[in-house]
Amino acid sequence: SDRYSLLILPGDGIGPEVMAEVVKVIDWFQANRDMTFDVTHDLVGGAAYDVHGVPLADATMAKAQAVDAVLLGAVGGPKYDVLDFSVKPERGLLRLRKEMDLFANLRPAQCFDALADFSSLKREVVAGLDILIVRELTSGVYFGEPRGIHSDDNNPDNEGGRVGINTQRYTSGEIRRVARSAFELARARGNKVCSMEKANVMESGILWREEVQWVHDNEYPDVALSHMYADNGAMQLVRAPRQFDVIVTDNLFGDLLSDAAAMLTGSLGMLPSASLGAVMANGRPKALYEPVHGSAPDIAGQGKANPIACILSFAMALRYSFGEGAAADALEAAVERVLADGLRTADLMGPDGGTPISTAQMGDAIVAAL
Amino acid sequence: SDRYSLLILPGDGIGPEVMAEVVKVIDWFQANRDMTFDVTHDLVGGAAYDVHGVPLADATMAKAQAVDAVLLGAVGGPKYDVLDFSVKPERGLLRLRKEMDLFANLRPAQCFDALADFSSLKREVVAGLDILIVRELTSGVYFGEPRGIHSDDNNPDNEGGRVGINTQRYTSGEIRRVARSAFELARARGNKVCSMEKANVMESGILWREEVQWVHDNEYPDVALSHMYADNGAMQLVRAPRQFDVIVTDNLFGDLLSDAAAMLTGSLGMLPSASLGAVMANGRPKALYEPVHGSAPDIAGQGKANPIACILSFAMALRYSFGEGAAADALEAAVERVLADGLRTADLMGPDGGTPISTAQMGDAIVAAL
Ligand SMILES: CC(C)[C@H](C(=O)O)[C@@H](O)C(=O)O
Ligand SMILES: CC(C)[C@H](C(=O)O)[C@@H](O)C(=O)O
Repeated sequence: SDRYSLLILPGDGIGPEVMAEVVKVIDWFQANRDMTFDVTHDLVGGAAYDVHGVPLADATMAKAQAVDAVLLGAVGGPKYDVLDFSVKPERGLLRLRKEMDLFANLRPAQCFDALADFSSLKREVVAGLDILIVRELTSGVYFGEPRGIHSDDNNPDNEGGRVGINTQRYTSGEIRRVARSAFELARARGNKVCSMEKANVMESGILWREEVQWVHDNEYPDVALSHMYADNGAMQLVRAPRQFDVIVTDNLFGDLLSDAAAMLTGSLGMLPSASLGAVMANGRPKALYEPVHGSAPDIAGQGKANPIACILSFAMALRYSFGEGAAADALEAAVERVLADGLRTADLMGPDGGTPISTAQMGDAIVAAL
Repeated sequence: SDRYSLLILPGDGIGPEVMAEVVKVIDWFQANRDMTFDVTHDLVGGAAYDVHGVPLADATMAKAQAVDAVLLGAVGGPKYDVLDFSVKPERGLLRLRKEMDLFANLRPAQCFDALADFSSLKREVVAGLDILIVRELTSGVYFGEPRGIHSDDNNPDNEGGRVGINTQRYTSGEIRRVARSAFELARARGNKVCSMEKANVMESGILWREEVQWVHDNEYPDVALSHMYADNGAMQLVRAPRQFDVIVTDNLFGDLLSDAAAMLTGSLGMLPSASLGAVMANGRPKALYEPVHGSAPDIAGQGKANPIACILSFAMALRYSFGEGAAADALEAAVERVLADGLRTADLMGPDGGTPISTAQMGDAIVAAL
């Protein structure tokens, strides 16, 4: 049978709860399909800090590099707000992204039919919405040097006497590789890519635009490509999101735009993501899968969290890491069935009623639907 | 009578058309109220490039420094897309902002009752929306050095061989002064400020958060202050925008977030902005007023443009530059009356019908309502 290695990093807040439901799903596939998963569990974020004094131990990093796919819950919480920048929970996640070189972050924003009324947008604006944001994840202002806070004492005009610096830096190679990911993905969807930057004010945006255009002209002339300033992109996502198929953008713009896009769907608890790197010798890409939602410390430990985003992240792993498209389809169909049956975690209880169930009951229902 | 000097820069696209309607309003106040306006007209953006080879001539810059207020239409258009970065229309606007040191950009996002159904968001989410985004406008990644596109030949991993760089740079003094603007404005409104950054990944965001907090604790402890990561801010604006009163954020985040906020209202053609600098010896701030919308080259010259955003920008000038609060109120009331009467430019024609009128007819109707 096919053997896949998985590192599970539940992290903080609701991370462990939603991950427990994913484990049920993994067990089901193992018991009922010709797949074997070698699963290792480890710590990330605040949970790792509590034990190791760092948000990601070197040994965990090494395991992440060795497995076929990493599954992550969520990191962060108010308890860790006081920590120094260098050991905050987020640094664990950022280290994984950087050292695994996971340059393409895939964030689908889909509006589930059964949940369209949850959106703050009108049903007719979001029904059937299905866009994919491809966010560059290993470069830009998140990682550029120089960076830091310095004193600026010699400047009499600078009340407070400090200066904070970050560097937005992109190479043409970094832009080209994520552009290729976007074009490839578009070919399997609506064949349309919109690239977003601020080429009207930033030189790094000019380079972004030119390199995306270059990849298009030389390698993907069959895909429809357009360019949009990121501020207009934010507007257009609110105004008429269905005009988009695949959006490709940089790390920081992607952070904001993908969150806005996620919120359009009205069901943040439903949205998965995949972060992919280079394809390895075994034909599988370096990969990390995680829900789009955060650690939600306010509802942690109460059985209220929605495990679907994390379960659908595992479906993405089946598809992108293991080439198990049929299994991914089956899992996604099981989720849709459970929703159609009216089963709802707390975040999905709305005007249309539905049967309120807990995190664990949702996981069980999805396994039963499989 | 009170004398006010104004520099009018209509700019490109629909700029001249909408500005022609503002001139009617200015003439009305001059004829009917105890105010005298010394008005000068000049060029900016592509219009200036066509004549001077630069998007803002030095002589125009000098005039802008000398007047009480600058009124700008819009800049840019496809004709100028091929120009070098350094002479693109936008550079004219950015030069004005930078050299006049207009550090506080006020962008109200208000949902007009008569137009609430134009929003892509549900009426109950946006009805009565009234938020004010205060965007830092003279620093950050828009102006930070080093910047540019360089070759990066020695890097064999960099396919394409180039690198694009911009620098996000904020001093504590720059943050404190815009924070003060936000707190002052909040006191005259809902007394609530939400500051947005990415302190979880950027040191400049940490400095931003600390300095805003410092200004609050030392000078405005009576105003309610909260902090939010900008990606969450983008989400919350889509989910439940009425939770906000005043939002203060940096130049780049402000660019995206204020555009998203503007689109929530569904009536971009209605939204004004003010960009304010230091208070001069005569008690008036350096100031530039402009509509939030762009130059809309696709509809330029057809009498379709909505002049209200530009007219309401003049209302902001009456209020913030000239201390003519009553006149500003009267002008805003005239706009509301015209809308309540069902008069609609093309962008406002929707499900509720209304009487379709041209740009010029809208200007005339507002003057008549005065
Ligand atoms: C947690 C944080 C560091 C992260 C980011 O900014 O990338 C998150 O917002 C995300 O989008 O995955
Ligand atoms: C035209 C452009 C330079 C400008 C900006 O990015 O600031 C515009 O988008 C704005 O928000 O006023």
